[in-house]
Amino acid sequence: MEQVDLLLRNAYVFNSYLKKFIKKDIAVKKHKFYWIDDELKVNAKVEKDLTDKYVIPGLIDSHMHIESSMTTPNNFSNAVIKFGTTTIVADDHEIANVAGINGLKEYINSGENTLLDIFYAIPSSVPSTNEQMETTGGQIGIDEVTDLLKDPRIICLGEAMNFKGITGDSTSLIKQIIEKCLNIKPNFPIEGHCPQYSGEDLAKFIYAGIRSDHTQQTAQSIVEKISNGMFIQIQRKTLNKDIIKAIYENNLLEHVALVTDDVMPDDLLKGHLNSILKLAINSGMKPEDAIYISTYTPARHMNLRDRGAIAPGLIADFIILDDLSSFKINSVYKNGLVINDNNNDSSYDYSDKLSNSVKAKKLVKSDFILKTNLVKNGLVDANIIGLNMNSTFTNQIDLKLEVKDNFVNWQMQGLCLLLVQERYSESNNIQFGLVKGALAKKGAIGSTWAHDHHNLMILGNDINAMMRVQNRLIDEQGGYIVSDESSILEDVPLTVGGVVSLLPVSDLGKKVEHLRSCMNNLGYYNQNEIMSFSTLSLLVSQKIKISDKGLFDVKTQNKIPLFCFEHKKDFGNRIIK
Amino acid sequence: MEQVDLLLRNAYVFNSYLKKFIKKDIAVKKHKFYWIDDELKVNAKVEKDLTDKYVIPGLIDSHMHIESSMTTPNNFSNAVIKFGTTTIVADDHEIANVAGINGLKEYINSGENTLLDIFYAIPSSVPSTNEQMETTGGQIGIDEVTDLLKDPRIICLGEAMNFKGITGDSTSLIKQIIEKCLNIKPNFPIEGHCPQYSGEDLAKFIYAGIRSDHTQQTAQSIVEKISNGMFIQIQRKTLNKDIIKAIYENNLLEHVALVTDDVMPDDLLKGHLNSILKLAINSGMKPEDAIYISTYTPARHMNLRDRGAIAPGLIADFIILDDLSSFKINSVYKNGLVINDNNNDSSYDYSDKLSNSVKAKKLVKSDFILKTNLVKNGLVDANIIGLNMNSTFTNQIDLKLEVKDNFVNWQMQGLCLLLVQERYSESNNIQFGLVKGALAKKGAIGSTWAHDHHNLMILGNDINAMMRVQNRLIDEQGGYIVSDESSILEDVPLTVGGVVSLLPVSDLGKKVEHLRSCMNNLGYYNQNEIMSFSTLSLLVSQKIKISDKGLFDVKTQNKIPLFCFEHKKDFGNRIIK
Repeated sequence: MEQVDLLLRNAYVFNSYLKKFIKKDIAVKKHKFYWIDDELKVNAKVEKDLTDKYVIPGLIDSHMHIESSMTTPNNFSNAVIKFGTTTIVADDHEIANVAGINGLKEYINSGENTLLDIFYAIPSSVPSTNEQMETTGGQIGIDEVTDLLKDPRIICLGEAMNFKGITGDSTSLIKQIIEKCLNIKPNFPIEGHCPQYSGEDLAKFIYAGIRSDHTQQTAQSIVEKISNGMFIQIQRKTLNKDIIKAIYENNLLEHVALVTDDVMPDDLLKGHLNSILKLAINSGMKPEDAIYISTYTPARHMNLRDRGAIAPGLIADFIILDDLSSFKINSVYKNGLVINDNNNDSSYDYSDKLSNSVKAKKLVKSDFILKTNLVKNGLVDANIIGLNMNSTFTNQIDLKLEVKDNFVNWQMQGLCLLLVQERYSESNNIQFGLVKGALAKKGAIGSTWAHDHHNLMILGNDINAMMRVQNRLIDEQGGYIVSDESSILEDVPLTVGGVVSLLPVSDLGKKVEHLRSCMNNLGYYNQNEIMSFSTLSLLVSQKIKISDKGLFDVKTQNKIPLFCFEHKKDFGNRIIK
Repeated sequence: MEQVDLLLRNAYVFNSYLKKFIKKDIAVKKHKFYWIDDELKVNAKVEKDLTDKYVIPGLIDSHMHIESSMTTPNNFSNAVIKFGTTTIVADDHEIANVAGINGLKEYINSGENTLLDIFYAIPSSVPSTNEQMETTGGQIGIDEVTDLLKDPRIICLGEAMNFKGITGDSTSLIKQIIEKCLNIKPNFPIEGHCPQYSGEDLAKFIYAGIRSDHTQQTAQSIVEKISNGMFIQIQRKTLNKDIIKAIYENNLLEHVALVTDDVMPDDLLKGHLNSILKLAINSGMKPEDAIYISTYTPARHMNLRDRGAIAPGLIADFIILDDLSSFKINSVYKNGLVINDNNNDSSYDYSDKLSNSVKAKKLVKSDFILKTNLVKNGLVDANIIGLNMNSTFTNQIDLKLEVKDNFVNWQMQGLCLLLVQERYSESNNIQFGLVKGALAKKGAIGSTWAHDHHNLMILGNDINAMMRVQNRLIDEQGGYIVSDESSILEDVPLTVGGVVSLLPVSDLGKKVEHLRSCMNNLGYYNQNEIMSFSTLSLLVSQKIKISDKGLFDVKTQNKIPLFCFEHKKDFGNRIIK
């Protein structure tokens, strides 16, 4: 009789090919499934009876960003593997924006020994705009792509999003990158980010080689995109009854997968891809189908032929569930071995490049003074950023502000001062914006976790609080900090590249949860306060955003002056004067 | 408006993702599909109205052997593209057996400019047994595999079939080959040949990394294999109503593809993968599903992400059908260009290695004399090969033959003499067998197309005819020849490696058809006469076969003496004395 390492008897085993549970025994040999059948006759070192239990493959997250959880690969692994996520494909574009290809490589290497299997995407859009619009700590060009293509852990091109570059006639960088990838690896998945494109726009995007999308879908868009050849990665905000109905009506299961995309550290305390899976079931999907699209289809989409099902020869990654209704996890196995509660060692000494990445000088009071000479009748026309409670999109608001001796009285009408300080080249270049609807009480919020360029960004209505936050961010080389007028209320250290914490996720999550409540205490409200603030600097997110190069109209990519003599009506086409 | 090369209006276009026909326009730009939608607004160089016509993707054959059609890549391309086959994955193991890696490379390179897109498999089993059992003109070992893995046209490992090597504990060559492939290309498809394996045997086969099978299936085996993780390539002999019922009942469509495997030259006159597709429909499959498994699933299985559907960015390979019931082909497009009737230039000068590959000396009458000293009462016990009318399997028959002065009277009881002459090393080693049930009239059949070693094999009951055939095979350096007692009835020259003809398939097919009738005229009958004869030398095909090393019991791989003192009952375990 064959000698095996592990034998599980009488479980309801999920068969990914038949999309159903069948009562079977499972034998595991040398970290792989060996044989799944009835009443196996093998000699097993360890044997367990799993009567009434369910066994499903380990979950595979085919589109996500580790830095969205503000953590390291090691800590991320410890955080998610207990939720049954055993494989991820990570697009670490934040680290690439902060520290370029060398920082990216270091971050990848730091996670070399995680229990979790981590594959990587080549960040395709670093920066997501260009040097004229933002200063980043690194760029991924053709040379970097060529270099990264040599790494067997890197298995796809991350979300291409530059619509103009992708659909235009010229040979843009993103077109060159796609061509390089397909030239060297013809079956490399080319991932896209194409919200709301349809018709010829969508055709052009796909014609350029882009074969997947993970942005928010409607029942209509998911059918249009899949019928044009896209694989759709369904994240939380896409999931609803209409989407699931559209999937069933059009028989689209094989062309979709569940993904997490971004999970904030505090949410990570509650679950990972298993949460999305449960949400899919609660939205009307059959459990068997939800499992299939969290295991089998993502593996196939990513060319990972050694996993995604419970079948001979595949890596023995699996979850034992107590029951199918609650999806309560009994235990998780990676490579045929049970995961215990003791976290794996997560320590790693990051180099100076990542540990000391905030090069900016400390600001003093006089740095916060806003002056203008564009005065007319004691007033200046200002282009103000208006916040939304329900999204991360902003509005542009035209306001007239008082000016006295060229000093602008921005404190009127409850405005906040917003500044971005360049932190890579020691230029210390600072740009200002003004925000309406941000804070109700005196205080400041500041962070180096400011997408995508991750320069130093401070928002506040109290100069002392802003200085306090700015100075602390430099002292600790990155973080996320809230201060009221007298003292710091929460300080989440993000000391790796200014975007990632060394704290275990259990601690980090609690601190981030508290950070939110501190933001709320100052009067900053949003369905995701942290993303709302941190995307004030995201130049590919509507409508008016800021970088170290100034304010920008996202749609036209044109610069917007903070102050001007007179507002024009057609804001979208405004040209800098 | 966008400028496109080709615009097809009002066709019923097959959507592979929705598995249905939808009335659409199709725009093609730079050899790729650009946009498929209603009433397209584009400027087109060429525009056609396809009202009432159907458009489906070009057919993709994911498992086949060009040499089974006894032809060159160029002639094969000309023969099949008019039937709508636009991509094949060829496992050229016959050429590799005949001429090793250099011959294989030359054969591949000879087809570099075919209209048909040809991808290749690494022949995994050259030889399919070992040096002790047969002499081949080449071997594919680890070094050759490593070399071939560098070629981007080579996209999978061809059918691994050595059950002992694959399932045993030792580190066999085939295990090393699989490991090497997956080490260098982790998502390389590893194709298998695993007839009738089930249970733990099947699990072991799949555990070793083998992920597909194209051998004949039953309704039960197809479900067992797919539920264990295999992709099943369905060839003609697998197709029947039970199989199709099993596919539908278990929802297995995404895990199967239609393939041709082997198509004889005369059959190639009638059709290619389109014939299998029609057979699938006639056996009860929905046309849409039959198209899906001849286009989309084979592309996905082979990681060919640039084809297999009509969608933006994919290569514009497609077929226009007059109607869906007859599947009558109106026209075929490759890379967006219509295929016309004029064959592409198929000339190619093969090197001496392939053009002069039959090194054996011409035999004379005395070479055909069969002697033995194992005589008892004037008789010798002989192990005779018995033919089957309905398969290529043989039986072992025990007969007592008269011996006079040590000369064996094999002519009694309608026996034929079978000889295999080694033709690679100039050893001229000859082995004899005796066959019952082969010929009714006087004559001989001979060929260098003798699977898998392709030595020179002659069967006959008339020494002059055997000599005539053998001598001609040497004169023309390979062929397939039938002679009656007075003259040659048909001679199919196979002058490339002794297995491939330079004739266009239109001529070759007719000659092969005539060859069959000549075999029939001599009394040789089988549902496939040519394969029946040519697999008398196939040492992995049941039950008793012959090579230049002697007669073998295929199951045990033990040598069988042609003559012995006394037969044992348990033939399967007989050991050579």
